[in-house]
Amino acid sequence: MMIIMEFTEIKKTPLFDAFSELGKRIFLPEGIFYWSGRAKKEAELIGTIGSAHARESDFINGGSEEWLPCYLSEIRNYINNLHVKEITPYASIAGLADIRTQWKKWMIKKSLLDEHSNFREIHHLEKFTTLPVITAGLTNGIYLASALFLNPGEFIISPNKRWGNYDNIISRFIGAKIKSFEFFKDDQINLEGLKDAIRQVAEVQKKIVLILNFPNNPTGYVPSKQEARDIVNALNDLQQRLNLPMIVMVDDAYEPYIYREDVLQKSLFYDLHELKTDVIPIKIDGISKELLLYGGRIGFLTVGLKESWISDDEQLELLKNEINNKLEGMIRSTISNSNHFYQAVVRKIFESKGMDEIIAMRTPVKDLLEQRYHKINQEINQIQDDKISLDPNSGGFFLFMNLKPDVIKATDFADHLLKKYKVGVIPIEKPNDNINGIRIAYCSIDIEKIPEFVSRIRSALKDY
Amino acid sequence: MMIIMEFTEIKKTPLFDAFSELGKRIFLPEGIFYWSGRAKKEAELIGTIGSAHARESDFINGGSEEWLPCYLSEIRNYINNLHVKEITPYASIAGLADIRTQWKKWMIKKSLLDEHSNFREIHHLEKFTTLPVITAGLTNGIYLASALFLNPGEFIISPNKRWGNYDNIISRFIGAKIKSFEFFKDDQINLEGLKDAIRQVAEVQKKIVLILNFPNNPTGYVPSKQEARDIVNALNDLQQRLNLPMIVMVDDAYEPYIYREDVLQKSLFYDLHELKTDVIPIKIDGISKELLLYGGRIGFLTVGLKESWISDDEQLELLKNEINNKLEGMIRSTISNSNHFYQAVVRKIFESKGMDEIIAMRTPVKDLLEQRYHKINQEINQIQDDKISLDPNSGGFFLFMNLKPDVIKATDFADHLLKKYKVGVIPIEKPNDNINGIRIAYCSIDIEKIPEFVSRIRSALKDY
Repeated sequence: MMIIMEFTEIKKTPLFDAFSELGKRIFLPEGIFYWSGRAKKEAELIGTIGSAHARESDFINGGSEEWLPCYLSEIRNYINNLHVKEITPYASIAGLADIRTQWKKWMIKKSLLDEHSNFREIHHLEKFTTLPVITAGLTNGIYLASALFLNPGEFIISPNKRWGNYDNIISRFIGAKIKSFEFFKDDQINLEGLKDAIRQVAEVQKKIVLILNFPNNPTGYVPSKQEARDIVNALNDLQQRLNLPMIVMVDDAYEPYIYREDVLQKSLFYDLHELKTDVIPIKIDGISKELLLYGGRIGFLTVGLKESWISDDEQLELLKNEINNKLEGMIRSTISNSNHFYQAVVRKIFESKGMDEIIAMRTPVKDLLEQRYHKINQEINQIQDDKISLDPNSGGFFLFMNLKPDVIKATDFADHLLKKYKVGVIPIEKPNDNINGIRIAYCSIDIEKIPEFVSRIRSALKDY
Repeated sequence: MMIIMEFTEIKKTPLFDAFSELGKRIFLPEGIFYWSGRAKKEAELIGTIGSAHARESDFINGGSEEWLPCYLSEIRNYINNLHVKEITPYASIAGLADIRTQWKKWMIKKSLLDEHSNFREIHHLEKFTTLPVITAGLTNGIYLASALFLNPGEFIISPNKRWGNYDNIISRFIGAKIKSFEFFKDDQINLEGLKDAIRQVAEVQKKIVLILNFPNNPTGYVPSKQEARDIVNALNDLQQRLNLPMIVMVDDAYEPYIYREDVLQKSLFYDLHELKTDVIPIKIDGISKELLLYGGRIGFLTVGLKESWISDDEQLELLKNEINNKLEGMIRSTISNSNHFYQAVVRKIFESKGMDEIIAMRTPVKDLLEQRYHKINQEINQIQDDKISLDPNSGGFFLFMNLKPDVIKATDFADHLLKKYKVGVIPIEKPNDNINGIRIAYCSIDIEKIPEFVSRIRSALKDY
């Protein structure tokens, strides 16, 4: 017996129309989980568990009589306040249930970072979002979401200034295409460019897919509160006018690192989720920067659902189960599940600390970055040189300095900076995308060295 | 400057002809790594590092003056004999260099488990295999290898009795097809079936891709030494006759768990690698079972190269670099990199213990499984009932009992076993693939309970 979902509820939603062939096809056959689940409940003698188990004393010198997954005693030398059961066995496909629940609460907590949040919104957020699935890091979340929606050859819309790995994931791996738009106009988001890109894509395919990332890598841009409203309204209007499902992947890698009060204080996911139109946000976040555990490779993917799709609570649960099954099918097919140690650590941190305490633990780091942010902007703004311009920036780990391409090529400049001034930066030079500048990762520059850092850049500029 | 490989060496090999569109297209642009690498060497002031760093005392109470990746102090509560630097930062894309080297030595060590190994073979193995890349577990290795070679619609050949996740990865996710062959004939591998499958696939596509898994899930089958020779010779002959690149993915999940001396004692990878024809083996293994770290999600993918492709050492290095770049491009696009903790632990184990000691640590577990293996086979063989037959089995974690489909449907039987006898097993019922039976995971059954376990199965059989 192959237990297969019919996906009757997803098929009624615009999500299904937006799925790629892969997304339409994928599912997790539940046979093996059905039988092992039943065995756990009904059996006295279980022969379903596919990992080696034994009495600890039979494989560890001085072990207990407990029936455990077999492990090498060495492992215990490297852990503390954790049981081997939290380290050696598989975690479940979509992650440990506790953390998924904790992360959902965390997501709701993060929605309150804006003064406008109210009880209705929180209830709505709680009810009309899926339980996050755990992915092998934030990249994996972006990859899975992209594969769920994009066929080879189809377009996803992104600002020209974006994380370089989007091009790896979308163009080189999946074989889809990125429709770029010029990110800024007059130091604000180029809303007309975004809208044009959407209208152009709407002429060639029956869905709109976008990826947005604030605070942005490489620019550090976060929309002002007014810009955020404008973006949300523009997407809302266009979705209604075009009447195509509009998927917005919200890459929240740098979510907590916002250093100015006049910009959007929380992920754009929340405002998009409030829209009644079929602007469908997918929240992709993770522990890399939020809990400063880059090496943990634990990300989360949460789908925003629309009240208009649903007639009653039962249907809502079925829909959530179907989405979960498809995501589990994708996870099972590519990584099986995510690593156990970092999930166990995150669980312990959430269990032992309140969310406010976790934020407080992170605050010294945010404060350090915020001080560097102000310092480096201040220093760069003192440079009087029309060969450069700084992109608007209010958060994240980076800023981006544009160089006039007819005067300085970014890679030449980076090379010159390194050789003559011993300063290292990442040049980005993409003439087709109208990009020529350097990314400065002030997240890893000592604040005391920032004046000298900028001074050397100023000197290097004078050489041109 | 986008630094892009030309892949001139791969293009001269049959590997390139076997690549999928994705495989032909994928690469890792090295710009960011080029510039951050140069900055590390040449710069006094570095603004390339994209993770937050600071003096430890500035973000941790009582911290040192060391310049470190910023982390939450809580993390230290869960580790032991590890520095936070081994836990919180990213590992490199293809994994920590030390472990890749250690795992290659481990792979060579494992080749010696057969009495025929000689110095020439070891040298050849060392020289003509790539440095393993680290994947997010063995599933991820199978997925990446499948995506590297299979376009949607193309065939991969696999025995009908196979790990169910192959169907998720290959059919449901990638959209390729599995060409099944009946695994056994007269308690031996059905070599004619395998050869027929290859010949049929050769009629519709210009490459042959196979996946083999010994000890096999779900049957526990390992070829006898004679069968192994027959398989290797058959693949060799067919490759020469068909003159198509033949990729053999060798899924070595259960590699160390072999319980009989008359069967192949090491992975089939090694003998395939010795072939001078273009039978190209890809070794996929991992720590899940080899180091009993299922939750670690660390796998390895190693490509076997052919001496005939290469004219000198320089060309060999270039080829290895090109393959590595493509695999890194795939890893970067899907997971960025694999988790750091388990890599750090594996490194420590390999550094602090000799390989023989690691094998010795695992031996109690292997011995337990071996005793259960003999016990359960002995008990089942005493059942006199022509409704059942056992597939040949010599290793791994499972065995497979076939049920006569005209008398007993496997799912009915599993249901009956559970309800009346409180025994849990996994039924596999795939009429199109001629499979109807139950998988018994003796890896997790107490040896003392095996007689009762089998006795209840015997009783259940009598009910039919």
